[in-house]
Amino acid sequence: MSADTGDLSKETFDVGGVRLSAVESGIRYNNRLDLVLVELAENSAISGVFTKNAFCAAPVSVAKQHLEASSSRYFLINTGNANAGTGEAGVLDAERCCRELSALAGVNATQVLPFSTGVIGERLPVEKLVSALPELYESLDSSAWLAAATGIMTTDTRPKMASKRIKIAGTSVSITGIAKGSGMIKPDMATMLAYVFTDIDLEQSVANALLHDAVEQSFNRITVDGDTSTNDCCMLAATSKSGLVYGALTQSDRDQYMLELNAVFSELATGLIRDAEGATKFVTVTVCDGATSEECLQVAYTIAESPLVKTALFASDPNWGRILAAVGRAGVPDLDIGNVAIYLGDLLIAVNGGIAPAYREELGQLEMDKEDIVVTIKLGRGSASETVWTSDLSHDYVRINADYRT
Amino acid sequence: MSADTGDLSKETFDVGGVRLSAVESGIRYNNRLDLVLVELAENSAISGVFTKNAFCAAPVSVAKQHLEASSSRYFLINTGNANAGTGEAGVLDAERCCRELSALAGVNATQVLPFSTGVIGERLPVEKLVSALPELYESLDSSAWLAAATGIMTTDTRPKMASKRIKIAGTSVSITGIAKGSGMIKPDMATMLAYVFTDIDLEQSVANALLHDAVEQSFNRITVDGDTSTNDCCMLAATSKSGLVYGALTQSDRDQYMLELNAVFSELATGLIRDAEGATKFVTVTVCDGATSEECLQVAYTIAESPLVKTALFASDPNWGRILAAVGRAGVPDLDIGNVAIYLGDLLIAVNGGIAPAYREELGQLEMDKEDIVVTIKLGRGSASETVWTSDLSHDYVRINADYRT
Repeated sequence: MSADTGDLSKETFDVGGVRLSAVESGIRYNNRLDLVLVELAENSAISGVFTKNAFCAAPVSVAKQHLEASSSRYFLINTGNANAGTGEAGVLDAERCCRELSALAGVNATQVLPFSTGVIGERLPVEKLVSALPELYESLDSSAWLAAATGIMTTDTRPKMASKRIKIAGTSVSITGIAKGSGMIKPDMATMLAYVFTDIDLEQSVANALLHDAVEQSFNRITVDGDTSTNDCCMLAATSKSGLVYGALTQSDRDQYMLELNAVFSELATGLIRDAEGATKFVTVTVCDGATSEECLQVAYTIAESPLVKTALFASDPNWGRILAAVGRAGVPDLDIGNVAIYLGDLLIAVNGGIAPAYREELGQLEMDKEDIVVTIKLGRGSASETVWTSDLSHDYVRINADYRT
Repeated sequence: MSADTGDLSKETFDVGGVRLSAVESGIRYNNRLDLVLVELAENSAISGVFTKNAFCAAPVSVAKQHLEASSSRYFLINTGNANAGTGEAGVLDAERCCRELSALAGVNATQVLPFSTGVIGERLPVEKLVSALPELYESLDSSAWLAAATGIMTTDTRPKMASKRIKIAGTSVSITGIAKGSGMIKPDMATMLAYVFTDIDLEQSVANALLHDAVEQSFNRITVDGDTSTNDCCMLAATSKSGLVYGALTQSDRDQYMLELNAVFSELATGLIRDAEGATKFVTVTVCDGATSEECLQVAYTIAESPLVKTALFASDPNWGRILAAVGRAGVPDLDIGNVAIYLGDLLIAVNGGIAPAYREELGQLEMDKEDIVVTIKLGRGSASETVWTSDLSHDYVRINADYRT
């Protein structure tokens, strides 16, 4: 797909109080940025959401503990190895990395949060990481966004960044985020690795609430393959360096800030889908007129995760019967199919339990030939509505995931 | 995969009171058996389970009505067109076919049950079917099992049959079944098209109970892609022509009969998986030591339907981290990963939340190189156990489903 997000020609704004660096430490591959450090100003408000996978990775449990214990100053992120399924030894490995960095930086080990992504079930090559730390620490730079976004990539084909600089109440504030992820993606309260930085002043409880709301409408609404990673993390860090205090803003200024913050999250989340493993289509599934949000999501995810729908999308085949079958099996209680309407783009396809009278295959084909496809289901049961984003299932998805470790 | 089920060298036993035929009616393709008729002796006990998909196909609703209304004498089955998503017109089409056949056979239209499988959302070419009915009716034969099993195939690469002849209480009884299906397979109380015939005498309530139990342990334990068809049907017909009366048997003779009946269902169900679209592996997922059957099934299906697990299976890659991640996201409440053990075949892979100390990649590779792979998860929470069968996700799955209509 064309690089219509993470567009490198767009400006990435620095965020006061944030410095970054990335180096090649050779964790899994040579000549590849695979170790990233983010430094945050003292007293930043930092909020995180983490995978709900019961087999959460060692760095996830360590990061959660450290986040509770102290005011975080560093994110240390490696790719190539997820340090997951590694038991107690993995926890000690993650802690060792934090300790080594804290000694260099003159902070407590608990002020370092570790993140890992890559292959599950292999011990982290700690010595390689540790040897690279001095160079990593020395090269911290307030503009190294592209290097950091590149350094957290695994099967991603391009770095994902989103950035805004806005003026609120006369003060300029930045919001810049980076994210990685293109497979094993179905977030459950958090997702993949994503880091959003802003130089507004946020109280901790407000940071938590803003992160939760933003994630709920972005990373928690995407799916590539229904698989939830053991290492998902999404962090929001607010350094307060712009001097703007969120708590002192009018409601309308707060709303403006929230809107921009959510836009950064959405841009990162949909960017993951556009770069999903093997993806040739960007698919928006909206389910509306439902009785509850839950049933709308249930139908939307059943469509978005159906291998048959996804292969039809890959083939640009207006085989809408597969969409209809997915709606029918989604488990909505007492669904009256006579009230259900199915659209491809603006084209009404199915209604009254059958083909729409005006539907013609050529019209369906025109919609399916597009790279961005919108599927809308009206359930005719109420006023709830939900949207999820997904990709198609292509030969390349199989190739990438059958070859990943070889 | 090798044709290790549906083995055509195995004998298929005729069932007293059952005759079959298959013809080429050109519904979708030429030179292909696509219309099948089964005739059942008068007063046979006939039981059916049908898809729970809310968008159930027209023939499914007609078959359910007819089954309630009278004693069925004929199953009329077509492939190439599912007559699903066709609204009221589709119901009229299905009824027309039943009426035309009933006129030929001298029975009531409600004594004919219609079944369709194939593309969803197109009108059934009724005239083609109707013109083929006389030849179909004339060619009824008590030995035409292979033709019938072939005539119900869609993307199946081979016919599926299972057959037993056993002696119970001195009387010889036959159980013979045919089935089709290799994609859009995750049954919900019923599955695909499957027909099992026996010449024992069964009361209706017993037929219902035996069918329900057999399906629960066979067709309701398989998944290819998690997609439930709009046209799933599974029928059991007992003609009583052997003279053996189930109700008069001792408990031990009943148990023997049940065992053989269940074996026919299992052979048909696992036969579908062995011929699943693009399948190169036959995968058994057993989850045991669970607190409830429900949580065992939840974990088993999460593994069996994970695209990442399935692509690793296709690659023969012992990437067991993906299995572990699937267990972790299955949603078992308060799962203590310290008690979970994961096996490939007899090889202990993960324990205590991490890699088993004795595990070596070469040993995992040996297990993954096999064509029949057994994954066992011990949850360490109780004594419930469940098994499901599935296939891998290959390039051919994508090719078949991206090309299906073209």
